[in-house]
Amino acid sequence: MTPISLGIVGASGYSGELLVRLLLRHPGAKVAAVTSRSLAGTPLEQAMPELRGAAQGLVFTKSEPAELAARDDVSVWFLALPHGVAAEYARAFLSAGRRVIDLSADFRLSDPARYQEYYAHAHPAPELLAEAVYALPELQLSEDWKSKKLLACPGCYPTSILTPLVPLLRAKILTGSNIVINSLSGVSGAGKQAKEFYSFCERAESSVAYGLPKHRHLAEIEEQLGAAAGHPVIVQFTPHLIPQRRGIISTIVAPSGGKTLEELYAVWKQAYAGRPFVSLLPSGTCPDSAHTVGTNRVDFSAVLDSRTGNFVITSAEDNLMKGASGQAVQIFNLLHGLPETAGLL
Amino acid sequence: MTPISLGIVGASGYSGELLVRLLLRHPGAKVAAVTSRSLAGTPLEQAMPELRGAAQGLVFTKSEPAELAARDDVSVWFLALPHGVAAEYARAFLSAGRRVIDLSADFRLSDPARYQEYYAHAHPAPELLAEAVYALPELQLSEDWKSKKLLACPGCYPTSILTPLVPLLRAKILTGSNIVINSLSGVSGAGKQAKEFYSFCERAESSVAYGLPKHRHLAEIEEQLGAAAGHPVIVQFTPHLIPQRRGIISTIVAPSGGKTLEELYAVWKQAYAGRPFVSLLPSGTCPDSAHTVGTNRVDFSAVLDSRTGNFVITSAEDNLMKGASGQAVQIFNLLHGLPETAGLL
Amino acid sequence: MTPISLGIVGASGYSGELLVRLLLRHPGAKVAAVTSRSLAGTPLEQAMPELRGAAQGLVFTKSEPAELAARDDVSVWFLALPHGVAAEYARAFLSAGRRVIDLSADFRLSDPARYQEYYAHAHPAPELLAEAVYALPELQLSEDWKSKKLLACPGCYPTSILTPLVPLLRAKILTGSNIVINSLSGVSGAGKQAKEFYSFCERAESSVAYGLPKHRHLAEIEEQLGAAAGHPVIVQFTPHLIPQRRGIISTIVAPSGGKTLEELYAVWKQAYAGRPFVSLLPSGTCPDSAHTVGTNRVDFSAVLDSRTGNFVITSAEDNLMKGASGQAVQIFNLLHGLPETAGLL
Amino acid sequence: MTPISLGIVGASGYSGELLVRLLLRHPGAKVAAVTSRSLAGTPLEQAMPELRGAAQGLVFTKSEPAELAARDDVSVWFLALPHGVAAEYARAFLSAGRRVIDLSADFRLSDPARYQEYYAHAHPAPELLAEAVYALPELQLSEDWKSKKLLACPGCYPTSILTPLVPLLRAKILTGSNIVINSLSGVSGAGKQAKEFYSFCERAESSVAYGLPKHRHLAEIEEQLGAAAGHPVIVQFTPHLIPQRRGIISTIVAPSGGKTLEELYAVWKQAYAGRPFVSLLPSGTCPDSAHTVGTNRVDFSAVLDSRTGNFVITSAEDNLMKGASGQAVQIFNLLHGLPETAGLL
Repeated sequence: MTPISLGIVGASGYSGELLVRLLLRHPGAKVAAVTSRSLAGTPLEQAMPELRGAAQGLVFTKSEPAELAARDDVSVWFLALPHGVAAEYARAFLSAGRRVIDLSADFRLSDPARYQEYYAHAHPAPELLAEAVYALPELQLSEDWKSKKLLACPGCYPTSILTPLVPLLRAKILTGSNIVINSLSGVSGAGKQAKEFYSFCERAESSVAYGLPKHRHLAEIEEQLGAAAGHPVIVQFTPHLIPQRRGIISTIVAPSGGKTLEELYAVWKQAYAGRPFVSLLPSGTCPDSAHTVGTNRVDFSAVLDSRTGNFVITSAEDNLMKGASGQAVQIFNLLHGLPETAGLL
Repeated sequence: MTPISLGIVGASGYSGELLVRLLLRHPGAKVAAVTSRSLAGTPLEQAMPELRGAAQGLVFTKSEPAELAARDDVSVWFLALPHGVAAEYARAFLSAGRRVIDLSADFRLSDPARYQEYYAHAHPAPELLAEAVYALPELQLSEDWKSKKLLACPGCYPTSILTPLVPLLRAKILTGSNIVINSLSGVSGAGKQAKEFYSFCERAESSVAYGLPKHRHLAEIEEQLGAAAGHPVIVQFTPHLIPQRRGIISTIVAPSGGKTLEELYAVWKQAYAGRPFVSLLPSGTCPDSAHTVGTNRVDFSAVLDSRTGNFVITSAEDNLMKGASGQAVQIFNLLHGLPETAGLL
Repeated sequence: MTPISLGIVGASGYSGELLVRLLLRHPGAKVAAVTSRSLAGTPLEQAMPELRGAAQGLVFTKSEPAELAARDDVSVWFLALPHGVAAEYARAFLSAGRRVIDLSADFRLSDPARYQEYYAHAHPAPELLAEAVYALPELQLSEDWKSKKLLACPGCYPTSILTPLVPLLRAKILTGSNIVINSLSGVSGAGKQAKEFYSFCERAESSVAYGLPKHRHLAEIEEQLGAAAGHPVIVQFTPHLIPQRRGIISTIVAPSGGKTLEELYAVWKQAYAGRPFVSLLPSGTCPDSAHTVGTNRVDFSAVLDSRTGNFVITSAEDNLMKGASGQAVQIFNLLHGLPETAGLL
Repeated sequence: MTPISLGIVGASGYSGELLVRLLLRHPGAKVAAVTSRSLAGTPLEQAMPELRGAAQGLVFTKSEPAELAARDDVSVWFLALPHGVAAEYARAFLSAGRRVIDLSADFRLSDPARYQEYYAHAHPAPELLAEAVYALPELQLSEDWKSKKLLACPGCYPTSILTPLVPLLRAKILTGSNIVINSLSGVSGAGKQAKEFYSFCERAESSVAYGLPKHRHLAEIEEQLGAAAGHPVIVQFTPHLIPQRRGIISTIVAPSGGKTLEELYAVWKQAYAGRPFVSLLPSGTCPDSAHTVGTNRVDFSAVLDSRTGNFVITSAEDNLMKGASGQAVQIFNLLHGLPETAGLL
């Protein structure tokens, strides 16, 4: 089979770097272009020393949307760009008939007003929202999503939360009321940073909550939970920064409303039968972030606390893999009829 | 003033080591005895290399309760022992008329049945429970507690949780219903460990929930919250292990029931006015565990989430200081009329 | 092409785990057997949670040498066993006509007396030494080594030291006199450990020299350097343990004897032209261990200090990849005529 | 005794912060002024959250040299400033008759030409060099140094290297030839940094040599070693950055020239008898950086490698304590006739 030719825009951050690394060794992909405004002209392996000897001679090119859109050797573009910036690239690429897999937040919310509320500026391309789909592959109910041209990769926190919760809301195991979510993230979730706060001496041996009470990812979490429940869902979400590089765990407390642990697990088993990147752990075994790092899995389990009547669900993932670049490659695989796990094991 | 002569039993763990270090440099204390079954005969500075040059010639002695109780050069004994073991020392020392500051869990619960439920063996000295007081100094309502002979130091998680919550329950800002607590602890909370699970390679870059749904500290948390509320309180408590050596943060979600943030802060300000080891941070500033390490403080703040109607309270402390050894020294200071901060700044 | 069927003995340590992971996704390999005395009967993905969903249904089998040797579905055996234990497996497998790639130290030294000096017990299979080859692929001078049945994988420290030094000794750029080597290793170099010394709290924020003055790896370092120089070479080697999980860097000081930096680089360029797993960095750029983690590369560079007349050579590698499992897979590839990089990018 | 009133200029870096913390709790000191250009007007405990509750109401003041020099409530000024900046403060304070304890490099070298060579700008106050003394207390041969008005605190690397080496050169145990030094430093040695290179994600799990071949500290190392030997000494010095916050270890290889380990230890014992901040470890026990963190000690030991004829000396210290702020306080104590350990245990 001919490898699919692709380009990666804005590859200099952590998720961009990992995306390049995954796609360079992907058996069904050919990396035709890697772009960066700041690094144009620089050989890939100079900017990304971990790719020494594996960069296939690639050099960063400039990042002009129109120029890139004109390239006919690229059929799929991955966008590893900040929110607000990704949209103009998406517009150019879609106009030229290319497909776009967008790792930014620009097309994750269906409502531009909600986007403005959470991102503090007007939506940069509301006319494209109808083209977009929130692409968490395990949660799609039909195959239609693969026909979309604009695939919005979910955020890192949302993936760890939605994967366990959405099937439970769809199946009415949970109503959506009184859900309390606490998430812990490694520092790479903040991206490459030249700030004192993110320096080694400040972050090592330090843990802290942040983003209270309305972290940006809350918007997409609640939109997806609401869609699953069939009515609006409001949750309490508190993210925390902890001293590790990669990995997220989420601890979700939700009233059981009389449902049993067996009913909960039955829903999960049905929803995720045969899915290679979801791992259900037995009740009582809490997933460890370290066991997911370097993999594209999300692991989770639940207990029922008979004293409180709550389910306590814990999940883990690699924020840069299933939470970003790995999921983007998984989407790429599914769109093109490749094995779902290609390049991801 | 003559320094108070004291002994430390079981000083070889992390909280024991820190206790020795704090008391060796304490201006009002004289360390007369340091005991350890496994280290008897070993010079302190050999077993604790961080004390090289500061160990005052001390050598570990044997740990026979009767022998130790017979020493008339020791008026206060600190117990840094596992639960179940501390009680026999407490009994011997109290019989001999000494005071006991116990860092173990043996005298934290008033009800032996609850002790058995959580610690899986019968209470080793139920007859002493009437002598004991749960000694979280900032939460004592009168001076009576200082006349007790058996002082139970609170656990590390409970201190970070009770300090912010108890005044709010007493003042009816919170009812005690539907409280969800998530705590994150550094690895020293598990003590010195020779297990693969606690090895550097397994813990570095790893975060994981554990102890679901009934961690042992839950018993003392609920007993103290219930006493503050005037009725039983049941909470959802999930501890997590994160890759740092010292430090705990707790994130507490509690329904506001229509109370305002101003009312909440007013209660805190009144409860903790002039207390040197409680630091109230402004709403919106979340305490960072690293800022408390090496101090005896607990820092906390709150926000009110208008979307959910919940207060979100976050707190931080050093698990080995305010969560263990520092608090024991603070108790020692208060019992003996020394400045509360002596040896702790 | 038919995948080559192989077995892995003693796969429960860090290098064993990584070997399994690499070979499970290797396009030219089929993992037919994974053995462990302590884990026999346990599914692989239970013992190695990072392999959840990727373990191909494998279950650990027992580890009896004779039984394993009798399996005709395995043509190559990898030994990830302690020194002293590996030899008996090697004997059984060689007798049965299988090939052996041994990650232990048992066949790295040509002289049984030297083995006894450094490993403190008699060599367990001196009769096999003639069958063995010290298999650092980049340093082999002819293709003969691929005909050997018993391949001894070099140690982690030696790989980072021999790769830069051997060509310089062969080319007489260095004489071998007065070489001082300091190496820094992540904690995984000590293997999986249930000792207090290797606990997170003891190793985090801690660095320390160890193994002075005769670390076991010194024996193979000096044997190989001596072979390259054509006369015995004695070096000063000091390893250090530092708070990271993976990665080794080595800093090598050697008198230049009037040779220039250009002469040194010319030798390196000739020796390593076209080798995918050696990366020469420009003088003045020191390799960073983090850039090699997850790769099979060794990176190195040199400066000439005009004040002292010394070359200072610095190198970096992933101790578990090029220093152990990755190198074993590289050997496997070369033995079987597969691309050298198969399964390793 | 009346506490000595002092000021600290430029207290916002790591060594400045620690200096403030040490002096605030020092029984013989009163912190009268803390200055910072960027933080003027900010309460200390806001800028340094670890001092919450212990900042004695101090507020950062402006940093104009003339204004500060005019304050008659300050008799000693500590300078925690970058090199090149410290000198103008020293000039102003000395003119006003104050004493200066300078943590910068401005007065560590006696030769302005050497300063220019290593710091790449002209010496900012060569006329003051005659007033200055290189104040490593344990290495002073007479009491004269305490009469100096300008005390230059040694660098962090030099302290860990000079303390073991200087007595050996003075006693002719070592000649000074062919010494190779490798040092490992925690990241705080680079100061507070807002650079991507010093970010948590780049430094965690990373080790790297740097500053080859002429790190700035080499100049003061060689000047002091030369003075001890009585003739110029040139050494090979390679520093490395490792993933810990605090702590330095140095590994020093030096030809024994036929001297014995007993002779070496005898010199050390005589040189350091009764010194509270030097700890000699038995041969074979390598000092661990973690055991020195939070202390003002330097620990060291040596082995003699009979194969190479070299001594291998290993040392450890806390780069921010004995390597900077603790040593400054030690100097302060000795200048004022206070106990050497005051405020430092």
